Amino acid sequence: MLKRQPKARIAVLVSGGGTNLQALIDAERAGKIRNGKIELVLSSNPEAYALERAKNAAIPALTVSRKEHPDDFEAKIVEALEAYSIDLIVLAGFLSILSEDFTRRYDRRILNVHPSLIPAFCGKGYYGLRVHEAALARGVRLTGATVHFVNEIPDGGEIIMQKAVAVREGDDAKTLQRRVMEEAEWKILPASVEKVSAMMRRSGVTVR
Amino acid sequence: MLKRQPKARIAVLVSGGGTNLQALIDAERAGKIRNGKIELVLSSNPEAYALERAKNAAIPALTVSRKEHPDDFEAKIVEALEAYSIDLIVLAGFLSILSEDFTRRYDRRILNVHPSLIPAFCGKGYYGLRVHEAALARGVRLTGATVHFVNEIPDGGEIIMQKAVAVREGDDAKTLQRRVMEEAEWKILPASVEKVSAMMRRSGVTVR
Repeated sequence: MLKRQPKARIAVLVSGGGTNLQALIDAERAGKIRNGKIELVLSSNPEAYALERAKNAAIPALTVSRKEHPDDFEAKIVEALEAYSIDLIVLAGFLSILSEDFTRRYDRRILNVHPSLIPAFCGKGYYGLRVHEAALARGVRLTGATVHFVNEIPDGGEIIMQKAVAVREGDDAKTLQRRVMEEAEWKILPASVEKVSAMMRRSGVTVR
Repeated sequence: MLKRQPKARIAVLVSGGGTNLQALIDAERAGKIRNGKIELVLSSNPEAYALERAKNAAIPALTVSRKEHPDDFEAKIVEALEAYSIDLIVLAGFLSILSEDFTRRYDRRILNVHPSLIPAFCGKGYYGLRVHEAALARGVRLTGATVHFVNEIPDGGEIIMQKAVAVREGDDAKTLQRRVMEEAEWKILPASVEKVSAMMRRSGVTVR
């Protein structure tokens, strides 16, 4: 009998509330992520509520803060990723910018979710509420979210999935941000993680 | 009894095959444009098949070519629009760029349909197949179409409607262009014309 490739081992990198992490945990629990398993949550912020979510889901969680590791922040992250034999890194509200060395090392192994339909409202300066403020200022009727591989260009990597969300009359940046999360990010991020995990598993690029 | 405002009088400006014109004619016939009426088709190209479509629908049609009117092209267009007391101008594959004088004169009275989700793949140089080539080159999973008011900035005016269209595996610029027309342009252009006609009628800005 053919030996089956193991599931892709996933690390989720967070800095804050961790709603996208929760969407991933829920999707895995619901059997929607079948080819990967969240093995590690890594926070850049010791106060992140995402760490609670990891604990509640019995997922190992670590903090690597830039403040405590001003000179070896990324080295510490790599150390943790290697200790857990991570195949796939998911940025889920991770606020630190990763170096080109890092993104090259994990080429096509880092996923990010961005709250717009790339190439609209993305790149330098477009993060958090600013993305939605810009969309409202331009008066778009459709916005959405994009999951993409991370490379050295901000929001410039290959696109995996996109989902559109309608802007409603009376929306402000906060209501729009929330709806883009609910209707798009929390759906396409788990679906993309499953898609990439399945690709990795099929092509045998998982670490073990 | 209150006297009802007349329907908005619509001119459709074309240069080619006129599939978007046909979508408008069909929508009017189907009762989906109730607050406006196509009164004039104006072509910049005497060979445009759109002129046939106008004739078949018994809509007055004129040609104003830049070649024959190198110095007074826009003046001739204005003359025709005024002769027909036009309220709303729809650019439907009209290949000539209109001057700032023209767009100011008809401020919020010119609609254009662009085959992408503005602000993606729009502005100078993005027309026809080039728009879809650019979308495919970037690898987007969603594209679509946008109807907007025309102002002095190319594709820069207020957005009226947008509709998303999924890019499929194996799409080339031509298959994508066709699907964006069928699934988005031919739907949101008539719907936008009806919306703006209704706004004009309600606010009493139609000419008569």
